[in-house]
Amino acid sequence: MIEVDCLISGGRILVMDEKETLIPRGTIAIKGENIVAVGKKEEIENLYTSREILSVEDSLVMPGLVNCHTHAPMTYFRGLADDLELMDWLNNYIFPAEAAFVNREFSYMGSLLACAEMIKSGTTTFCDMYIFEDEVAKAAKKAGMRCRIGEVLFDFPSPNVKTPAEGLNYTEMLIGKWAHDPLVSIVVEPHSLYTCSESLLKEAKKLADRYSIPLAMHYLETKSEREQLIKDKGRNTPTSYLQDIDYLSERFIAFHCVWMEDSDIQMFADYGSKIVHNPESNMKLASGAAPVPKMLTSGVTVALGTDGCASNNNLDMFQEMDTAAKLHKVVHHDPTVMDARTVVRMATCDGAKALCLDNTVGALTPGMKADIIIINLNRPHLTPLYNEYSHIVYAVNGSDVDTVLINGKVIMKNRTLLTIDENDIIEMVKETSQKIRKSLKIT
Amino acid sequence: MIEVDCLISGGRILVMDEKETLIPRGTIAIKGENIVAVGKKEEIENLYTSREILSVEDSLVMPGLVNCHTHAPMTYFRGLADDLELMDWLNNYIFPAEAAFVNREFSYMGSLLACAEMIKSGTTTFCDMYIFEDEVAKAAKKAGMRCRIGEVLFDFPSPNVKTPAEGLNYTEMLIGKWAHDPLVSIVVEPHSLYTCSESLLKEAKKLADRYSIPLAMHYLETKSEREQLIKDKGRNTPTSYLQDIDYLSERFIAFHCVWMEDSDIQMFADYGSKIVHNPESNMKLASGAAPVPKMLTSGVTVALGTDGCASNNNLDMFQEMDTAAKLHKVVHHDPTVMDARTVVRMATCDGAKALCLDNTVGALTPGMKADIIIINLNRPHLTPLYNEYSHIVYAVNGSDVDTVLINGKVIMKNRTLLTIDENDIIEMVKETSQKIRKSLKIT
Repeated sequence: MIEVDCLISGGRILVMDEKETLIPRGTIAIKGENIVAVGKKEEIENLYTSREILSVEDSLVMPGLVNCHTHAPMTYFRGLADDLELMDWLNNYIFPAEAAFVNREFSYMGSLLACAEMIKSGTTTFCDMYIFEDEVAKAAKKAGMRCRIGEVLFDFPSPNVKTPAEGLNYTEMLIGKWAHDPLVSIVVEPHSLYTCSESLLKEAKKLADRYSIPLAMHYLETKSEREQLIKDKGRNTPTSYLQDIDYLSERFIAFHCVWMEDSDIQMFADYGSKIVHNPESNMKLASGAAPVPKMLTSGVTVALGTDGCASNNNLDMFQEMDTAAKLHKVVHHDPTVMDARTVVRMATCDGAKALCLDNTVGALTPGMKADIIIINLNRPHLTPLYNEYSHIVYAVNGSDVDTVLINGKVIMKNRTLLTIDENDIIEMVKETSQKIRKSLKIT
Repeated sequence: MIEVDCLISGGRILVMDEKETLIPRGTIAIKGENIVAVGKKEEIENLYTSREILSVEDSLVMPGLVNCHTHAPMTYFRGLADDLELMDWLNNYIFPAEAAFVNREFSYMGSLLACAEMIKSGTTTFCDMYIFEDEVAKAAKKAGMRCRIGEVLFDFPSPNVKTPAEGLNYTEMLIGKWAHDPLVSIVVEPHSLYTCSESLLKEAKKLADRYSIPLAMHYLETKSEREQLIKDKGRNTPTSYLQDIDYLSERFIAFHCVWMEDSDIQMFADYGSKIVHNPESNMKLASGAAPVPKMLTSGVTVALGTDGCASNNNLDMFQEMDTAAKLHKVVHHDPTVMDARTVVRMATCDGAKALCLDNTVGALTPGMKADIIIINLNRPHLTPLYNEYSHIVYAVNGSDVDTVLINGKVIMKNRTLLTIDENDIIEMVKETSQKIRKSLKIT
């Protein structure tokens, strides 16, 4: 018998490998950070033994979800201002609140709250763009979450950096500081084409290339953004501008991509660039419905993200999956598009692929890091069970996640967070939110 | 001091009255089935005393949600067959499963499961259409839920009734049997214009009129339904046919209404007829997006429903609210439509109004029946709190409901159901679902 550190025993295992293996009663063996074996319960437990056994009969065991686009500290602004025109929302609420309140502590505490929420709803990896991202990384590290983070880069000063050059330096500092971390990795994140000069965009690209790390930005979120870019860049499509500045590659990740036409999609497919779909945010801000079915049939890797809490207003990837599946059915008048399997892939293995982490997480196969969530199926709204993928997309919500492992470590057990104290975090965020409320004169 | 049966003390109370009163720290006094007083904590507790006090600091207290359209026993078919063309879904899965499995016990157990799910996600009243509705009523009664139920009426035989006449007789039996029940009331429910002969439709109308109860049916769910009706009925709009057969009145409730044009909406407004919107089902089956903003500006009462579990796949009204708000924003390219307040009204007071129960439930005012839900706000994904309506629509999910009262009685406390044993129900439904799985050769 081989001694391992943990056995997850007896659950229905959704492996999310190429073959879409489903093991009705299986066991996973974990040694250190890694999955060492996955298979039928008897077969694995005849070979492996462990002092720690999580018995998970009546549970669904699957890869932790990958939230490919969020702004973690913005949990502070959850529900601050809703149902407003974009410019009213930004100019009268979000920007003033950010100018007045964003500092190191804000980014750290807001991210801790985001991590608490994400872990409790089954997300184990997130990709983040905000200000003071070193604090986001520290919070994720404290919570035990995996993340790809990057400081937002644009032409104007932020509460953290005064110039684009400082932003690039800060990013390079992050790259060095977190280079060998098992959980945190860095992404270079220019905010968007419309907020970054060409020189900033090119420097960002150079930095990403120098360290062979991904480059990510908001892209074609709104119709007016597309129209303005076509005008400003003097091209038929903004994507040919991306091509000109050498952005299109397998390490390029574009958030939103709502207003993409067939030619844009084809270029993303040709270069292997990645797209992150944020349906709930796009719906709530009335940005539009991204042409995701076309992206998928064109062979583009499409991942899923919640966007920040100011425009969603939660970080629940299960709800995001449900919305992703349903939105495109109604938009395309076709109930067969975005089937449940496809959507689960977007939130797991394809999410990992988008972040260039597909050799690390996204599937429960030997050699992968043990990022695993366990869903209690013994609930009225999850009864009966005919199809696991359907359940995950259309019936499960984040609160059904019972236990979470990240990098081989149990981070939440029976809905209790083991790495951070959620009540402390809630109290601290509430305190600051009172000040935000007063400052913005919200009654 | 006046002795009452229960005080709900210290929560943030969303009254849902005409003034949209919000009491930041309030108390509700309940005597028997009724709310007798609502106001600031100190004021109420200086006047009223009770042996039972529910202390609900850090909680949101609001009217129980009203799910205005479902098919409760169809919980049995949750996730049975998804992502399929409508006719494939109906002919190869739903109809064969119904023909083989629907009987009294099926309707009773499926409804018990539905009640468990609904109570646990904050629904206190539901409107149901299915087969063997007496069993649905018994299940609701056992669970302690309020409901408006009606046997589905159409031209062909059902597992319960062989002819339309038998269906009408069964409905009249229900009306008599449940006439004085505090929780159960009846609605006459012809299935739709395309499944009912004119004579059945007219008899149904007579029956509803004889007892002054509502008349409800599916209406304009799909585009092809509209086109076929225009052809068959030889009119510009199906709604003028409804007018001809005298259906339009304040007691007429139409489910779905996806394919309504302005003239249909205006007729509903003129007659005070009600509409029930089911966005998640309409999206999942790719039926379309009902013109709800137009309905609302025209003054039609629009309520919310989940539809059955085979086409959603849950009965969570919080998710339905979230989807309702977001769907219309993206469809209308306008983030200001379907604001959170409007959507919360649809799920509470306007739902009650649609079911002609607005003198009974839907708001927390003195004289109303005490149908109340208590939401624990002390959670990461509900922190911070700026706006209660936004939270309910965009952040809360069904699992955040802690405690539920219906008709003055505590039905769920700290997420434990007090009227029914959910584990027993889950086990029984699982057993039958194994047979359904085998019979339909689902692997």
